Amino acid sequence: MSSSINKIGKSTVPRTAISTSDEHSITVRGEDLCRDLIGRISFTDYFSLLVTGKRPSQADAMVLDATLVAIAEHGLVPSVQASRMTYAAAPDALQGAVAAGILGCGSVILGASETAGRLFTEVDEAAKGKDLAAAAREVVRRWREAKQPIPGYGHPLHKERDPRVARLFEVAKQAGSSLRFVEIAEAVEKVIPEIVGKDLRLNVSAAIPAVLLGTNFPLRALRGVPILARCAGLIAHLTEEAVNPSGFALSYQATRELVYEGEPPAKEAAK
Amino acid sequence: MSSSINKIGKSTVPRTAISTSDEHSITVRGEDLCRDLIGRISFTDYFSLLVTGKRPSQADAMVLDATLVAIAEHGLVPSVQASRMTYAAAPDALQGAVAAGILGCGSVILGASETAGRLFTEVDEAAKGKDLAAAAREVVRRWREAKQPIPGYGHPLHKERDPRVARLFEVAKQAGSSLRFVEIAEAVEKVIPEIVGKDLRLNVSAAIPAVLLGTNFPLRALRGVPILARCAGLIAHLTEEAVNPSGFALSYQATRELVYEGEPPAKEAAK
Amino acid sequence: MSSSINKIGKSTVPRTAISTSDEHSITVRGEDLCRDLIGRISFTDYFSLLVTGKRPSQADAMVLDATLVAIAEHGLVPSVQASRMTYAAAPDALQGAVAAGILGCGSVILGASETAGRLFTEVDEAAKGKDLAAAAREVVRRWREAKQPIPGYGHPLHKERDPRVARLFEVAKQAGSSLRFVEIAEAVEKVIPEIVGKDLRLNVSAAIPAVLLGTNFPLRALRGVPILARCAGLIAHLTEEAVNPSGFALSYQATRELVYEGEPPAKEAAK
Amino acid sequence: MSSSINKIGKSTVPRTAISTSDEHSITVRGEDLCRDLIGRISFTDYFSLLVTGKRPSQADAMVLDATLVAIAEHGLVPSVQASRMTYAAAPDALQGAVAAGILGCGSVILGASETAGRLFTEVDEAAKGKDLAAAAREVVRRWREAKQPIPGYGHPLHKERDPRVARLFEVAKQAGSSLRFVEIAEAVEKVIPEIVGKDLRLNVSAAIPAVLLGTNFPLRALRGVPILARCAGLIAHLTEEAVNPSGFALSYQATRELVYEGEPPAKEAAK
Repeated sequence: MSSSINKIGKSTVPRTAISTSDEHSITVRGEDLCRDLIGRISFTDYFSLLVTGKRPSQADAMVLDATLVAIAEHGLVPSVQASRMTYAAAPDALQGAVAAGILGCGSVILGASETAGRLFTEVDEAAKGKDLAAAAREVVRRWREAKQPIPGYGHPLHKERDPRVARLFEVAKQAGSSLRFVEIAEAVEKVIPEIVGKDLRLNVSAAIPAVLLGTNFPLRALRGVPILARCAGLIAHLTEEAVNPSGFALSYQATRELVYEGEPPAKEAAK
Repeated sequence: MSSSINKIGKSTVPRTAISTSDEHSITVRGEDLCRDLIGRISFTDYFSLLVTGKRPSQADAMVLDATLVAIAEHGLVPSVQASRMTYAAAPDALQGAVAAGILGCGSVILGASETAGRLFTEVDEAAKGKDLAAAAREVVRRWREAKQPIPGYGHPLHKERDPRVARLFEVAKQAGSSLRFVEIAEAVEKVIPEIVGKDLRLNVSAAIPAVLLGTNFPLRALRGVPILARCAGLIAHLTEEAVNPSGFALSYQATRELVYEGEPPAKEAAK
Repeated sequence: MSSSINKIGKSTVPRTAISTSDEHSITVRGEDLCRDLIGRISFTDYFSLLVTGKRPSQADAMVLDATLVAIAEHGLVPSVQASRMTYAAAPDALQGAVAAGILGCGSVILGASETAGRLFTEVDEAAKGKDLAAAAREVVRRWREAKQPIPGYGHPLHKERDPRVARLFEVAKQAGSSLRFVEIAEAVEKVIPEIVGKDLRLNVSAAIPAVLLGTNFPLRALRGVPILARCAGLIAHLTEEAVNPSGFALSYQATRELVYEGEPPAKEAAK
Repeated sequence: MSSSINKIGKSTVPRTAISTSDEHSITVRGEDLCRDLIGRISFTDYFSLLVTGKRPSQADAMVLDATLVAIAEHGLVPSVQASRMTYAAAPDALQGAVAAGILGCGSVILGASETAGRLFTEVDEAAKGKDLAAAAREVVRRWREAKQPIPGYGHPLHKERDPRVARLFEVAKQAGSSLRFVEIAEAVEKVIPEIVGKDLRLNVSAAIPAVLLGTNFPLRALRGVPILARCAGLIAHLTEEAVNPSGFALSYQATRELVYEGEPPAKEAAK
């Protein structure tokens, strides 16, 4: 049938450059999975190959590893709580509890890496033929005027700079990768007090794009980094939950001071 | 309130041995995240540390890397299709499309690693004071009698042994890790024709527990391996989908030969 | 290509009896959606038509409505907390927060309706030519021996019978639908103390199959009832969350007494 | 601890006006669930009560029912395919397959109801002291200039007006509810050809807010309507899938013409 509820958009033939296979071999990004990749490449390098189509340089892999390690785990944050509660209620479906945790990697919390990456890319553009401080001021001002939050600055616990920031910047320096976006991230940090009116310091969500955009990791895959990293942390939490459950204890504690603000029922049923 | 809808089970205080933090530092599994881990440990080693509480040996890490690389990507399988269709319909929420793909890591497809691991552990137990072939025969027969499918054998495309199997076994040998569960997996493969009546060969879902159970990776975290691995593959597919969309083309193709088996509506509306 | 990673199982042509459409009309279960259904049938009747292929009788619809109303909402239970936390972290994706809440409709909490329905069906079978009490005793004993929990009895808050139970049984009586499975549910409740050793009373998860199996609603769709019902409750909670946020307050409260049971980091970095 | 990773935002005490309970009763929106609601109110009325805090008028309930019936089911659209493939791969977790389907209710497909509702609300504002055609022209032009798509117009299958549109408008008229937003929706339809350059007709996603905004249903809960409705359709599809599977057949068909655009592997392994 040519007319179909599913004829959406122009293309009707699916295409992919990631992988193909036949009965005897599996090809991924132009390499033979069994011959060239398994046992010869780390999972981090493979992630980079899958996403970008090319194997990362040693420096790029070092930075990517550092970002994945930095963001994988930070205790019982909301998405981990959601995941452990889901597992407590539905222990047969580990994949469901992981999915529930990943659904919390949104614009407010773990998605900030990607938005911060966009901000830095705009500053990079604006800085052509202008100094970085002026470019940062211009772009941050534009975002504020458009009522967009400045992503990646400020942290509920780490009021001074998030300790992961300095460490990620050090790793990028050691790896010898481009520090262009680290400089941009710091330029943004400097103009925030005068424009936003608060002294918000770099957090890990801004440090991740700051170091990764200096490698060949693409802007549009940035949100994938905290998602993959958290997936590892979630699996650890659910492995713990299976043996030492806390999911229901969390939900019990969460509502100990709960206030009901609605009406009480009428004394008698309505006639 | 002591009485609560959320007082489920005995424990009311949540506990974790994975991570804690204060304003200036983050502790993970007894190590200082910024000082000891970021830039000093690969993501694979970190995943192992998160799950098991201990850093893996070099051999253990080599095997874990190999399994993650082996299972991360195999083209446009159902869960990848589900993920790409979800992204096409809801492109603002990358995390939702990843979650949809992970929800397909279930008992029939990617969850088989864990079930195969349980099968092998039963064979291992049964083989105490008995030869492996007899133990495999006994356990496979018991599973068949209980109408449980034998997980990890047979593949829709790779009719002979899945090519990833031999490669994973090679890597385990090279790494020098225990081959006990590799032998068990092969013993099970040998008894399948006589008990199941089909010549089903080892696939990657059985090879993963076969090599990982020879390291310190725990049985109960096995299902996490394909989930984490696929997460990387899904992110690559969604990064491609954002630029070269195939999600709606897949859904168009999927229903080109769809048959409606229901009734047509009555000619006239019922009175 | 005849050989494909996606050739799983025998059937390669998708079929459905639920719906078809052309440019000018949409057919659902043999009825014209626009002419026969929109504005002429309630959403509950439509749900029943979609699932069973037939419009429900008035009695069946009354019972189905009662079960959906009974289970849709019970305050800030774990799945609602997971959903609100997810929305707080990812407010752009309402569908993701609903999905996270639905993922908590698992075997332990909201999935019990279906398992209880299976238990009752086994008792019904066993009671052919035997009295109900004996049949209930036999089946409950068998489940206990197989280490399966008895689903639908006991409640963390409602120690005496969950108040929804009596009301659902009343509605079934008023509707004039078969009370066979209500009797079975009560027969099971009576034998629980002697077999399980605890006086666990009927809760809403057992009452739902007890009344629905007396209508034409199929056993295998039972788990859909709490899922659809909770979906309505979740949407209400997320609509509230958008205006009066509690998601992060819940996660804050949940970890106020959190205990870290792991090691502190070593005083100095390892060399 | 006063300092916490989870102290996000100002409020630390969770509050709700939806529901509370004690051992003997459950209160929802100021009514006693067992005494006042179960068996006395339809699921649609209850959904409205949950979301808005008030029982709907008969007219409001009639319109809400009509929209839920209109959008619940339209055959094997992408989100239904994703759900059935997920179920085929993970049949133990019905909730996971429902969640996967709901994750496809995004901005491109089923989320358009809410965005269309925002568009109409802006036209309504703009029309104060101006005629509707001029207000529609102004707002549609503004959205186009901001590069926002005009949601709710055009359909891949129903090139003329989606047949559900006329029926929903008829139901609103019969119910006697306000037709203000129906007029706005039609005013927008009229100006689209001159501004967008294509003759895109009203589809169901615009018709839903057009009729619901004439009742007391709030703009911010609009996206919940297609989500709840589709949840019913998904449960029907998964109940069918359990008996007559099509999930893997869909994924097989979807990739029959798949093109691999990447490189083949090198002839020999790299040294």
